[in-house]
Order: sequence, then structure tokens, then C-alpha cells
Amino acid sequence: MSKYWSEITKSITPYVPGEQPRDKKYIKINTNESPYPPSPKVIEAIKEADDENLKLYPDPTVSGLRETVAQYYNLDKDQVFVGNGSDEILAFSYMAFFNPGKPVLFADITYSFYDVYAALFKIDYRLIPLDEEFNLPLEEFFQENGGVLICNPNAPTGKYIPVEEIQRILNKNMDQVVIVDEAYIDFGGESSIKLIQNYPNLLVIQTLSKSRSLAGLRVGFALGHKDLIEGLDRIKNSFNSYTLDRLAMAGADAAMKDQAYFEETRNKIIKTRETLSQKLKEIGFKVLDSKANFIFISHPDIEAYNIFQGLREKGVLVRYFNKPRIKNYLRVSIGTDEEMEVFYKGVKEIIGAR
Amino acid sequence: MSKYWSEITKSITPYVPGEQPRDKKYIKINTNESPYPPSPKVIEAIKEADDENLKLYPDPTVSGLRETVAQYYNLDKDQVFVGNGSDEILAFSYMAFFNPGKPVLFADITYSFYDVYAALFKIDYRLIPLDEEFNLPLEEFFQENGGVLICNPNAPTGKYIPVEEIQRILNKNMDQVVIVDEAYIDFGGESSIKLIQNYPNLLVIQTLSKSRSLAGLRVGFALGHKDLIEGLDRIKNSFNSYTLDRLAMAGADAAMKDQAYFEETRNKIIKTRETLSQKLKEIGFKVLDSKANFIFISHPDIEAYNIFQGLREKGVLVRYFNKPRIKNYLRVSIGTDEEMEVFYKGVKEIIGAR
Repeated sequence: MSKYWSEITKSITPYVPGEQPRDKKYIKINTNESPYPPSPKVIEAIKEADDENLKLYPDPTVSGLRETVAQYYNLDKDQVFVGNGSDEILAFSYMAFFNPGKPVLFADITYSFYDVYAALFKIDYRLIPLDEEFNLPLEEFFQENGGVLICNPNAPTGKYIPVEEIQRILNKNMDQVVIVDEAYIDFGGESSIKLIQNYPNLLVIQTLSKSRSLAGLRVGFALGHKDLIEGLDRIKNSFNSYTLDRLAMAGADAAMKDQAYFEETRNKIIKTRETLSQKLKEIGFKVLDSKANFIFISHPDIEAYNIFQGLREKGVLVRYFNKPRIKNYLRVSIGTDEEMEVFYKGVKEIIGAR
Repeated sequence: MSKYWSEITKSITPYVPGEQPRDKKYIKINTNESPYPPSPKVIEAIKEADDENLKLYPDPTVSGLRETVAQYYNLDKDQVFVGNGSDEILAFSYMAFFNPGKPVLFADITYSFYDVYAALFKIDYRLIPLDEEFNLPLEEFFQENGGVLICNPNAPTGKYIPVEEIQRILNKNMDQVVIVDEAYIDFGGESSIKLIQNYPNLLVIQTLSKSRSLAGLRVGFALGHKDLIEGLDRIKNSFNSYTLDRLAMAGADAAMKDQAYFEETRNKIIKTRETLSQKLKEIGFKVLDSKANFIFISHPDIEAYNIFQGLREKGVLVRYFNKPRIKNYLRVSIGTDEEMEVFYKGVKEIIGAR
């Protein structure tokens, strides 16, 4: 604690990302990265953009990439905002759409950055408890609020709610912004993007970190009514005119255009997830239905923390959250079939299954 | 104006960066970019980093690059913060060190993003008027305040104040953070970095956008006491865990290590600046003493706006600020000798000099 820190700096508890260890080589299934490399066309596009033009500022309006994303989703360019990962867009959204004194609603078990933003920007929030099976109680989002934030599929549970339920929430919140964080939507869920034309209160946020294998490039985007996009632009342009460098723009553009590669890799991940889930159930695990690139699992006999530690010793890194309600669960990112085989053998040994 | 915007979004006036026109090819000396390409080693390092590891998150602590910067300035790694351009670091600094209700002091004529941040983060500020010759009245920074922000060399004037004067300001503000924005320090000024060991209240911010020819890569850094760096880290980790992508880190690292190229290009810019300044004075221009990669000029007979427009028609883009006190000045970024020759011929024609 330093006397030079602002009151906010003193009061916040920063987000802690999943560890990126360097002590040895792990099977790293703890931060929901893709096990597959980005499309070769991405690598190529970046090499092409890596030239003397790096001396010049990037396009502050990110015009080309926004156009590409707009075309991909059949929207207008002014319905697209591009940011430095979906985390940055979430941070901008708190500033752009939420006010102090009016609580924002989100689930008690969800992406653990949401309450960190709230503390940073002094936005009140109310946690909506998920039910015993981690389902979202829709009606709770009909109460008076200052905004709604839903992660769909949810992290770390992987549970997905259908677009019709999002629509019910939107209908009851026409005066506030409803943000649907779709970081994991490409792994089996249907996006709420189709509701954008009818709901000026809907902002959908996606990322290239997961389904496009580009966690290392830092690109996310938000889709919504042009007034919402303008709100995000106003904040961004009061914060940092250029949050995406030239290389990130080039790579992201190529990624959005390589549909075949995208389909191939995300389908492989879905298939691996389903196979693994089945096998884990057969050896006694509870496995939540997941539409994400991870699964959330629990074993009736062996504590999650012990499995986590046992796996770590075997060189397999999964995510353990020391938090109420979920401390007997592990979040396991879906890797390649080979990686999942190592993981599976490891847990089998740890739980003593034959 | 949308009903979905927060009170802050409604109230702010975003920063407007210098134009990046696409209608035709200009001699672009309006945004203080370097006319020289980045070091070939930067291009090479990026190509090497452009591989399948892009699927993995970058190091959230930016450990390697911080180590490189620390070594360069003979500091410890925990005295270095790295961000997405110095603009992002300035934004984080407002959150990390300033409080509402305690006015931050900065010059009335300086980088025009400072008051934009203040509005975004609801931080009060008091403008310190520069004197007639755009000099900083030191004593004005001795009054009670909530923080001090000094751009040195100043933008858009290019005027530099010596380290001894910064030290006087530091001595009178031991209870607040004094930020010295040294975006342009490499073009002839002496950095205040040498004061860091003795002043726990000093934060120096620099960028790779100008003297390292990397405006398109978005990398800046802050140097100061480890408590200040920890404050910035706390804010960053409550905002976006990864603001630098893998390619930016690799390129920036290579840039900081190619000292020979850095010296060569910045010395060329200094030489061009001095030659041009002399020639402009000879045809009647007032040219402020500059230690930056731009000059700030005014002509006694022809209005700056008319020169700006005349140059634009000739395909030369300079920066005009329609603001009190400086609306008869133009800010001209230093390009290559060839570009400056075109600029010089252009202004000569416009002012009707023989």
C-alpha cells in the first residue's frame, strides 16, 4: 500500500489470470486457449503487414477489420466495435453504459472479471445466484437494475442458455443495456447476434482468443445498435486512440476470412469435448453440459483440489477456483485428443479407477 | 446522444487524433511519426514471433520486455511498467494516482489528451497558463494540488525544460505523483529518469512510437518507484490482463536492443530539424526552440490556417489546432530531408517569399 495510490487503487482486488508457468512444459488446459494453431493465412497476413509502415499509427477507426466482421455477421460497419481483446471491451462497456448507484445484474458464478470491473469503475452490482445445477434463474433479471451482464455459454460452467431466454431478458430490460458475453459461443451455442436488429439495448461481445486460436493477438469485438457502438467509441477515444496495432488488425482480418479453417478446428474441439465428457462420466465424474471449449467437472469421492494438485505433478495444468460453491469443481480446457488422453489417464490414476 | 449511454459517456468530448487521410498520398507530417522505418531487427523479430504460439495468451507481466527496458535504463524490472502506447499508461495513471476533488496541474497548452482523461475519470484539474513565449512558470506548480503532469519536451510547442527544473517541482510535491511525459525526450532533451532513485513521487512515461519508429505497434513504458509501478499494475490487472500482444512485445524488445539504429535515425531527425528551423527563420517564420521531432511555427503575415490549407492542396499535411493562443501556429513533424524540402518550397510559395 503506497501513499501515492488513489483511493480506487487502494480498494481494488485485481483479476488473477490462469497461471502461465515457465518452470517446465505442461499440458496447458487451464486458460481455455485453443490447442490448434491459428490459420496459416493469419500467420501469412501478419508477415505481410510486418513492414516499414509500422512507423505509422494504425487506423484509429479500425475500418477494414470492422468491415470484415460486419460482413461476416451481415451487419453494418457502424454496428461493430473492435477492441484489444473482449476484456478491454467489457471494461469500456462499464464506462460507456453503466452508472454508479444503479446495480448491474450478473450471476454469482460467472466470469470473475465482472466484479473486478465493478470495483474499478465504482459500479454497484447485484449477484444473481445460479440454482443448484448452475442454471440461470431468468426471472431474477426482470427486477429493476442498471444493466445486465450474461456470459453465454457461462464460464466456468460451460452452460448455455438459448437465444429465446436472452430475448426474454431483453424484453424486460428495454431501458438498460444487456451485454451478452459470447466468448465461447462458437463451440456449439447459437449467438444472440440475430436479435441485434430488433433490440437497441443488446450488446454482444465476442473474441478471437478462443475459436480463432488467437489469444496471443488480443482482438475482440462488440456488435450492437450503432448508438451503443458510438458509446464505446466515445470511451475508447477518451482513453487510447489506437488500442489495436497494425499486426493484430491484419491477423484478425485474415482469421475472420478463413471460414474453412475455423469450422475444422472448432468442430474438432467440440468432438473432443463430447468424447471426453462421456469417458469422464463413465468413471464417476459429474460433467456439466458444456457448449464451450472447456468442461466443468467434479468427482463424488476425490476433492477437486487434490485432483488439481495430482494433475499438476503429472505435468497437466487445469483451473481450480478456490471459491464458494465451485471449490469442488475443476475447469478443464479442451485440448487435442492426445492431450486429453494424457489428462484422462492422469485423473483415472488419481481417483484410483481401473 | 443515446438513452443507453452512461452519464460519463454523455459528458465527455473524446480526443481527436491527427487525420490519417486515405484520399491520396500525402507528405504526412501531422502526427509526429518517424519518417524512418523501424530497425530491420524489429521486422525480423516480429516475423520470428509470428508463429503458432499466437494461440497462447501473452505473458501478462510482460516480463522479458520489462527486463530489457530496465537494463537499458539501469533500473530494476519492478521499476518498469509496459503498456499499449503511452496513452494507455496515461489513462491508467489517472486511475492509479489521482483522486476526484483534488485538482491535477498541467499547462494550458500541452498534449490535448490530458483534459480528456480528466473528464473520463472525473478528476479535477487546474490549467497553468504558459507565459507569452510558452515557457512553464515553475512556481505555479508549487501550489496545493492532487498531482502534476508535465509534458517534456512539451507538445505542441517542442519546448524543453531541464532536469533541474523538474527536480524543483518534485521537491515541492513530495506527497503527490509528478508525471513527466517524455514522449519526445529522445530528440535532444535529457531524461528525468536519473531522478527516479531519489524521488518516489516521480513517474516518467516514454513511448516507442516516435524515436523507435513504432507508432503502428502500440508500445509505451513507465518508469518509477516500484510502488508506483505496482499501482499501475493493479489498475491494469483490473482492466485487461493482457494489453500487449506477442508480436508487439517481440518487436519492442528488438527495438530497445538496436541502439545503433536508434542513434542513427534520431540524430538524422535532430539534424533535419535544426536545418529546417534555420531556413524557416530566414524567410520570416517564428520557430520555437524544439527538442522534439516536430517544430511549432508561426508567420507574422500569413495566418496559420491559410498556410495549413495551402499546404494541404500541395499534398503536405501538417497539424493545425483551432484553439486559443495557438491558432496562429502550425505543428510540423520532422520528416526526411527530401520531405522537408517539399514542405519548405510549399510554404515559401504560400507566403510569397522569393
